[in-house]
Amino acid sequence: MAIPIQFPFLLRFFFLFSLCSFSVSDSDSPNSHQHRVFPRPLIVEYAGVAEVAEEVRLRCGAWRVAGEANNLGEWKTVPEECVEYVKEYMTGKGYLVDLEMVSKEAEEYAKSVKLSDDGKDAWIFDIDETLLSNLPYYAAHGYGLELFDHEKFNDWVETGGAPAVEPSLKLYEDVLNLGFKIILLTGRSERHRSVTVDNLVNAGFKEWDQLILRSSADQGKRAVLFKSEKRNEMEKDGYRILGNSGDQWSDLLGSSLSVRSFKLPNPMYYIP
Amino acid sequence: MAIPIQFPFLLRFFFLFSLCSFSVSDSDSPNSHQHRVFPRPLIVEYAGVAEVAEEVRLRCGAWRVAGEANNLGEWKTVPEECVEYVKEYMTGKGYLVDLEMVSKEAEEYAKSVKLSDDGKDAWIFDIDETLLSNLPYYAAHGYGLELFDHEKFNDWVETGGAPAVEPSLKLYEDVLNLGFKIILLTGRSERHRSVTVDNLVNAGFKEWDQLILRSSADQGKRAVLFKSEKRNEMEKDGYRILGNSGDQWSDLLGSSLSVRSFKLPNPMYYIP
Repeated sequence: MAIPIQFPFLLRFFFLFSLCSFSVSDSDSPNSHQHRVFPRPLIVEYAGVAEVAEEVRLRCGAWRVAGEANNLGEWKTVPEECVEYVKEYMTGKGYLVDLEMVSKEAEEYAKSVKLSDDGKDAWIFDIDETLLSNLPYYAAHGYGLELFDHEKFNDWVETGGAPAVEPSLKLYEDVLNLGFKIILLTGRSERHRSVTVDNLVNAGFKEWDQLILRSSADQGKRAVLFKSEKRNEMEKDGYRILGNSGDQWSDLLGSSLSVRSFKLPNPMYYIP
Repeated sequence: MAIPIQFPFLLRFFFLFSLCSFSVSDSDSPNSHQHRVFPRPLIVEYAGVAEVAEEVRLRCGAWRVAGEANNLGEWKTVPEECVEYVKEYMTGKGYLVDLEMVSKEAEEYAKSVKLSDDGKDAWIFDIDETLLSNLPYYAAHGYGLELFDHEKFNDWVETGGAPAVEPSLKLYEDVLNLGFKIILLTGRSERHRSVTVDNLVNAGFKEWDQLILRSSADQGKRAVLFKSEKRNEMEKDGYRILGNSGDQWSDLLGSSLSVRSFKLPNPMYYIP
């Protein structure tokens, strides 16, 4: 995945600094009128550096969008050249604007649905990077550059301090008020039920119909299978799955699919 | 969809020009030292305008990505505020880099597959905005701002002059060389078979197993149903559908799904 750009990038910097030192020694010479040419190589090279940065930005943007469109094969870490891009995306406006767009589309759809009065119209929400944000954890772990470390991540989960994904909290409240039954379906382990409940409530998610975590029997299953099985059980219980929000394609694909699925952005990690 | 930004945007311009005229008349006064303040409001306002432009860019980027992730409901035209963004994306490097990323991922997957020797491993390609580009047509019709006009579009199809989507041509050749059977599955009408064949051949696509167009019986069917039915027939004919490339989610979803699907970018139109 990572197309190596470091070498030409460094070469350009080397070229830049050679020109600088040449210009500086030149400006030390008595030909003071030559002083005027000093900034020129800097400007030319700045454009060159900006061009490379723009190419990396385009490539990393293409990589991110390919992930959102489910075009990427399984990946373990963010491509090295994209770490800065992902950091800027996650901490700048890009991530928030994307989240708001997905919530708005989901809300429009939710409002367009005519619900039955048997209380069996369901909306599924994943938890991590869907309702709760682990950005504080990933900020301390390279925004996806580091290989996923279960133990460290579990320590973070056990703090119970994950903030709400704000646009999802708004969607959650809207969907709840419209009369959908909310089912939370997460890859988190059953042993984290209590801390997860506390974290959800503290973050503003106060009410749900079911909270489904991985039991010991589900450990080791691929997420797409685990979640398909659980959706199948919901259907058997009479639920009509009308909406499903998740940041991973494995939250949304498989079998017993929702009528509409909403893929929240996440360029930091991939769960098969 | 289109969040109206025209009003505040114009207001800012109004503000900018008021400040300009104020500064200009001020610089006509004998207090020539005040001349120094002249560019300041310009700079301040330029930042304001750039900020609005950046917000539109972010919103339109979020709209485009939401489309690629299949988060948008059915849409008829590009949101008005995003026309310039879409034009820049399609005619600049963005579209090409995205196409290259999808082709590269598809090629990596194609190479990873172990083919059988019964000649039944198939790769499906859609045609419009997948193998052939209608960008010349859309450039003359507002890059998706205009409502789709079947008649005008058919006139364009009948010129047979659509160029290849270059990264797809490369993938096509790679997939062919790997031994996949290529099936072209398009929403184009059977009456355009001949011009479509000529156009494909002229654009460099020389060989395929089947070219499936809409027969009169398929007219009026939603694309997702038409294409699912055709994939189902392929399966009945013994094909294993291992790859599927299309620019619309209706090329890829439904039933008889491909093992892997590849969504090519297309922010100009939506086919349900």
